Amino acid sequence: MRTALAVIPVEGMPQIHPDDVIAELVTLSARAQGTPLLDDDCLVVTQKIVSKAEGRLVALDPTDMAARRALVDSESTRVLRRRGELIISETHHGFVCANAGVDLSNVDDGQAALLPVEPDRSAKRIRDGVRAHAGVEVAVVVSDTFGRAWRHGLTDVAIGVSGLAAVVDLRGEHDALGRELQVTEVAVADEVASAAELVMGKAAGVPVAIVRGLDTAWRREGSARELVRSPSEDLFR
Amino acid sequence: MRTALAVIPVEGMPQIHPDDVIAELVTLSARAQGTPLLDDDCLVVTQKIVSKAEGRLVALDPTDMAARRALVDSESTRVLRRRGELIISETHHGFVCANAGVDLSNVDDGQAALLPVEPDRSAKRIRDGVRAHAGVEVAVVVSDTFGRAWRHGLTDVAIGVSGLAAVVDLRGEHDALGRELQVTEVAVADEVASAAELVMGKAAGVPVAIVRGLDTAWRREGSARELVRSPSEDLFR
Repeated sequence: MRTALAVIPVEGMPQIHPDDVIAELVTLSARAQGTPLLDDDCLVVTQKIVSKAEGRLVALDPTDMAARRALVDSESTRVLRRRGELIISETHHGFVCANAGVDLSNVDDGQAALLPVEPDRSAKRIRDGVRAHAGVEVAVVVSDTFGRAWRHGLTDVAIGVSGLAAVVDLRGEHDALGRELQVTEVAVADEVASAAELVMGKAAGVPVAIVRGLDTAWRREGSARELVRSPSEDLFR
Repeated sequence: MRTALAVIPVEGMPQIHPDDVIAELVTLSARAQGTPLLDDDCLVVTQKIVSKAEGRLVALDPTDMAARRALVDSESTRVLRRRGELIISETHHGFVCANAGVDLSNVDDGQAALLPVEPDRSAKRIRDGVRAHAGVEVAVVVSDTFGRAWRHGLTDVAIGVSGLAAVVDLRGEHDALGRELQVTEVAVADEVASAAELVMGKAAGVPVAIVRGLDTAWRREGSARELVRSPSEDLFR
């Protein structure tokens, strides 16, 4: 049998505050629940706790719509659409999402969480920290919950990556009938984030999951920039 | 520990031909590899083999670009964008994807595979068949590989669903700090399809995976229509 994938929620994480060391807390929580981190695990860590640990919190009265709009504008490089209070915009990372990723849920009242400044670097910091604290070599995906064009419902995607290919290029390999495959650049980091979301549940307060058993051929430095479709190639911007 | 999710590829499936009974072949293959199907498993079955089993194959000379365009047009209700040979269009199901889902890979030369006419019904047929052949109650997702606006790389999504909520509405539940969640309609069927893709690999010829351990609260009839954002609500159509 081909190796199966296991997606394991990491429970028991404390509330995160600025300067908390996520790598250490994940190492301890995973060990405490009997699933210590192993080499080649991929940790999926939600943006929310990364932003908190990095102090990416700003004061915001959630009822002050003008202040909210100003904050979203300041986090955006380009606004694609506005409808009522909803703004779809591009962040300085190149991600297109609602409200430039500014988030009011799961933070203290009167605060908003902004996206990490450099989510790849956030992922690398956690990866380096796990190596230091647990002595194992993992990959890390920082995930966030985005809407999509055309399809209803949100899915989790990767906004930061370290130690994993974000996009795997299968062009030139062959399909099961021996012919060359056509379009086969698979966004594995986004799929990993989505798989992790299935065990996290927004309401359950589980901010980290372990994805175990990914193809080790996908191990490389990686970057979420691979997932940004350049505006010139994008038919919908 | 919260229950982990397992994503298990089903190997040893034969090439599929019209009128093959997928439910029976999956039941046998899963049993042969030592992972018999269990109640509450979710089977993810790629569109390609569903289309083949349903005889959704048409003759097409892949070098005849005019014939290819005509075929894509006939499968589309609306064309959103054209660039060179690439057409982004809406299918009669309401899905927006490249070339209306018409696919030339993994089918015999001179043939193209069209999307199932009613993928929800295809999923239900497999689910009913598994109940008959294996005596277990599973959910079924029919998956396909779609591109996205704004983000590079393809991900697998659900085009047919039976026995599983496609979108789970968490509005009104509370976040970890006790406040009501804001936007929390999660496209779990798409996330399940993406998780399955991670063990399938386009080149590996594994057309079915078992996703085991999903929240049983998500069991209901379900429909991929939940995933179709109506054009009137869609800011990008």
